[in-house]
This record gives sequence, C-alpha cells and structure tokens, in this order.
Amino acid sequence: MSDLRRSVILRSRPKGLPTPDNFSVEEQAMPQPAEGEVLTRTLWLSLDPYMRGRMSDAASYAAPIEIDAPMMGETVGEVVASRDPRFQPGQVVVGAWGWQSHIVTPGDKLIALPKGAPYSAYLGVLGMPGITAYTGMKDIGQPKPGETVVISAASGAVGAVAGQLAKRAGARVVGVVGNPDKSLYVQETLGFDDCIDHRAVLDLDAALRESCPDGIDIYFENVGGDLQQAVFPLLNPFGRVIMCGMVAEYNDAKPRPGPNLMSVVRKRLRIEGFIVSDKPERFAEWRALAAPWVADGSLHYREHVVDGLENAPEAFIDLLRGHNFGKLVVRVGEVSHGG
Amino acid sequence: MSDLRRSVILRSRPKGLPTPDNFSVEEQAMPQPAEGEVLTRTLWLSLDPYMRGRMSDAASYAAPIEIDAPMMGETVGEVVASRDPRFQPGQVVVGAWGWQSHIVTPGDKLIALPKGAPYSAYLGVLGMPGITAYTGMKDIGQPKPGETVVISAASGAVGAVAGQLAKRAGARVVGVVGNPDKSLYVQETLGFDDCIDHRAVLDLDAALRESCPDGIDIYFENVGGDLQQAVFPLLNPFGRVIMCGMVAEYNDAKPRPGPNLMSVVRKRLRIEGFIVSDKPERFAEWRALAAPWVADGSLHYREHVVDGLENAPEAFIDLLRGHNFGKLVVRVGEVSHGG
Repeated sequence: MSDLRRSVILRSRPKGLPTPDNFSVEEQAMPQPAEGEVLTRTLWLSLDPYMRGRMSDAASYAAPIEIDAPMMGETVGEVVASRDPRFQPGQVVVGAWGWQSHIVTPGDKLIALPKGAPYSAYLGVLGMPGITAYTGMKDIGQPKPGETVVISAASGAVGAVAGQLAKRAGARVVGVVGNPDKSLYVQETLGFDDCIDHRAVLDLDAALRESCPDGIDIYFENVGGDLQQAVFPLLNPFGRVIMCGMVAEYNDAKPRPGPNLMSVVRKRLRIEGFIVSDKPERFAEWRALAAPWVADGSLHYREHVVDGLENAPEAFIDLLRGHNFGKLVVRVGEVSHGG
Repeated sequence: MSDLRRSVILRSRPKGLPTPDNFSVEEQAMPQPAEGEVLTRTLWLSLDPYMRGRMSDAASYAAPIEIDAPMMGETVGEVVASRDPRFQPGQVVVGAWGWQSHIVTPGDKLIALPKGAPYSAYLGVLGMPGITAYTGMKDIGQPKPGETVVISAASGAVGAVAGQLAKRAGARVVGVVGNPDKSLYVQETLGFDDCIDHRAVLDLDAALRESCPDGIDIYFENVGGDLQQAVFPLLNPFGRVIMCGMVAEYNDAKPRPGPNLMSVVRKRLRIEGFIVSDKPERFAEWRALAAPWVADGSLHYREHVVDGLENAPEAFIDLLRGHNFGKLVVRVGEVSHGG
C-alpha cells in the first residue's frame, strides 16, 4: 500500500462525447477513516452509461459531479482500515463510490460480500445493472407468456439480464445490438429468440417489423434514437415501454424530437421511467433471487474487463460509443493474500 | 312518430378538419325490432372529439365508421317498441348508438335510466366523459394533497370532471382553456385555483411556468400540440401524464414530433393512455359515486345544447375547433307525454 491515492478527476464538462481532456488522473495524500468510517482499497470499479449524465450540469435526478471532484462510480474494495466495528481489514465490501484507488466511506453505506460469486459480479449481474433490469421488468414490463419483448443494448449489463428475465417469463425475446459478435452471443449464449444488428441492416424499421411479426408488447429502452422511433409504430395495444436509458442521445447538444404520443392514447400504452435507487428493497430481493442462478450457471453474464484505473476514462468513452461487450468493469487492484 | 327515420351518414373521409360535405342527412324506412331488440326514439345525442378518429381509416383502437354508414355516437332515447321483456314503451334508456332519430338495439346493450337527474347528464357528467375523467384520475393520476394538476380543455366534459376530482383530492388545479368565458367558468364555478387562456397569452411556456411555480405533478392530456410541449419540461419527478386525447392534432395529415423522452427516465415519469371502455366496471362505480354529487350540486357540469339532428355535423365541426362550451349534446327529440 502506497502512501498516495490515485483519483480520476472531472476537469471540465464534455460537449457531446467526452474526451480524455475532460479527465485527469491525480495523486493525493492517503485519506484516513474518521470514527464510523472505513478505508477501502479498490479492487473493481463499475463504469456505466448513466455516469455521462452526472458529468453535465443539466437538470437531472442527481446532482452533477463538481468540476475538480473525483468521478463517481460504484466499487468493490478490500477494507484497509476501519473505525466501524462491523468491518475488519481484509474483508471485501461493495458500496464505496469513486474512480479512486482508495476511498473512505461511512460504514453504513457498505455491504460485506460473501465468498463464492466473483466479486466483480456485485457490480454487474448481481449489482446495479442486474437490479435495474429486474426492477424494470417486475414493476413496469411484467412480461407474459407469448408476448414479444424487444431489448435494446441487449448484450449489455442491463439488457442481458432483462432479456433473460423475459425468457424465464415465457416471452419471445428479440435483442438489438451493434455488432455481429454481440448478436451471436445474444442468440446463442443468452438464448434470445432473435437479434438485430442495427449497424448491419439497411432499414431498421423493416428489420424490426420482420423480427416482430406479432408486434411488440414490451420495449426495454436503453438507447433511444432511431431504434425508439422504429419501435413505437410496432407497439401493440397495452404495450409497455420501460424507460431505463437513452445512451444514443446522452451526448446530444439539444434534444431530438420524440415519437408522437397519439399512439399512447389509441393503444393505451404505458411509458414509464424508473431509477434503481428509488426502490432500495429491490437490491436484497434480486440478490436472493439471482445468486442461485449465477451459481448454477443458468443466468448468463459477460464482463468486459479493463486493467488499471488510469484507463478508466478511455474505457468510459468507448462504452458511450458502444465498444464494450458485456458489463464494463475496471480492475483497479488485486485481492491481497490476507483478504 | 313518423314512418321514416333520419340518419346522419358518413359520405367521405375528411382530410384535416371535417367539412359539411363529409356528411349527409338521409331518410329511410323505419326499422322494426327483431326478437330481443328494442326500437328507441332518440332524445339526446352525444358529440365527442374521439369520433373524429372513427371517421378515418387510420389504425385505431376501434374499427372506422364505414362510408355510407351512419355516424356513431351514444344516445339517450325513449323506447318506442320492444321485443325484450325488460323494456316497455315510454321508458328512457341509454346505450343506443347512432346519429339517428330512431335506433334498433339489442336489449342487452341498454340501461333504463331512473327519473331524477336530467337525462342528458347520462351522456356527460354521469356518462362516458365523466367516467373517462374518473378512470384517468383513479387509475393513472392518483392526485395527492398539495400536488399540482394541470387540466387541458378544462371547461370540457372530461376536463371539468377531472379537475373537480383533483380538487376533491386536495390538489392545486390549473386549467387551460381557449377563451375568457371558459377561464372565468373554470375558476369561479368549477373552483380551479388558476386558469390559462392559451389564446390570450403571448408565451404559453412562460404562462404555464408562472401558474405552476412548484412544477406539474399530473397532466391530464386532452389536447396535445403546443400545450403538451410546454408541459413536459415542467413535470416533476414521478409526474404522471394521463393520455386521454390529443384533439389539437386529430386533423393533422402527418404526426408532429413529440417531446423528447429523456426526461421520462430522469424524472421517472409515467405516461399512460387509456380508453374508458376497457374497464366497463367503472361505469356503475362512477354513477354510484357521482349521482349524489350531481344531486347535491357539488359536482358542477355545463352543457352546450344544439337543437336538431340535422345540425349535428356543424356542431361536431365546431367542437373540433373548440367552439363548444361544456358538454356538447344534440337535442334530437322531446320526451313524450306518456314517457
């Protein structure tokens, strides 16, 4: 353990797609925990599209990251020093936030992880993205046997779980992805019924119509843009649109027009947004439900691992361009032998 | 009783706003009820904006009216001849459909009306529009004390009831209307907290912001267009948009762009369409709830009465232009002395 901690700092607010200039990596004196706090050494850092929103000062559901403050992101870390009696050095915990090598966090915010599942899974399939997929499907989508469910960003951390949940409910599931490898993965490993590679088709509307001959009952929205426009005309009466994210539009300088909403009346559609943190009870619920599926291999997930905190900015930019394949995590440190 | 019945026939499909040429008034031989059917003489005909949708052959939730078929609309009528033992001549019933002086209907579709409330109320405050307002508020809006509720077409048959229900729930209610008399009515008679005359303000966005200093929690959508665009940025987190109709856009040849849906994610909005006929159980529920309020005068309603079936087309065109003031009903006949 060095005497310095490294942090990735937000230097300026991006216009459009972030660039490496918006970030800097800095070293500071190692912080020490005060009473009730815990110092962790980061093992895994989660990178997720929603962070793009926190880099802007536009109105959002959460306060923006301040300029010159560390970027935010959930981590799995190993306890280095603890002034909370519930935590001891060597324990692995989730719930410390920051693109940082070391983080001080109130013990109340931390959860000790059991051994068994890989720790990084608690940032993905058993973490925020998995819980996001579960919450959207449970509270809004409610897939029924025989319904057609379309999942955007289908090979991603949220989409892969959302689609597998719809399959478990007996629905017909169509994924949309951005390259042929992802398309293969979605169909062969995740078991979706069909998958569209939106970069490989000339006419997205026609491709979607062909893949969804009975219309669309549920759309899990992660991307927005052209796909959203293509989905709306195909929605069936009583269709549900789970508004989880619109990553294709996060870098837009001004908002694009949305779909005309007359069909919402005619077809009695339900379009609903949600944020996973609104329902904290879903976390434990999902982990209890899904941990056995992860253990028995019936719930598939895939990670895209980048090594080194200093590579987080570039990995994050690639994520926004859809260049990741699976849940993007940064390996910041190794578990110590004592841990 | 003459030996002929008069019908308003759909002659051609309108492009944009309907014109008198789209309709014709015709006389035919008087129909007779078959076994189980009832012949009614129409007393009141309801005219409602949704009928514009049935005049088009665009995809909708209901089949379009056929060319050369009578226009459709709910009526209150007096039984003239009955081959259903539950109905006798002279009874007044609701549930026969058509812009017609006389209508034959299966007895199963008819409900005999009690004496007491004016019969025309069963086409308005106690009929489809009132039930529409009730269903939207109960199932989607769910107003809470202190919330801000915006009602478009606030002096109309649906809006007036929707706003009064929100007031009863303890919300702050802001109406939007299209002329000063309606604005006065909405504030002084219906008791809304504020009202915007959208034709009298230079900047609708600014006027709405001023009337809703705490944002908007619920929007009851009857009109679409510019007002919808103005409402979206003011919606509060967890806001609900009750998608009941978009009359300002019913005559559009091609759909206008809708609001960008990124705010649906950020603010966890719920945008939901519904059609009153999806939940038939709401009809009896609402009549039981509201009939005492109509009787004691605490639920206000206003009718715009037009005399004579032959004037229905022009009255309907005026309705689509917002020229009515209150629930539009056509007085087609008088109650007979024997009834």
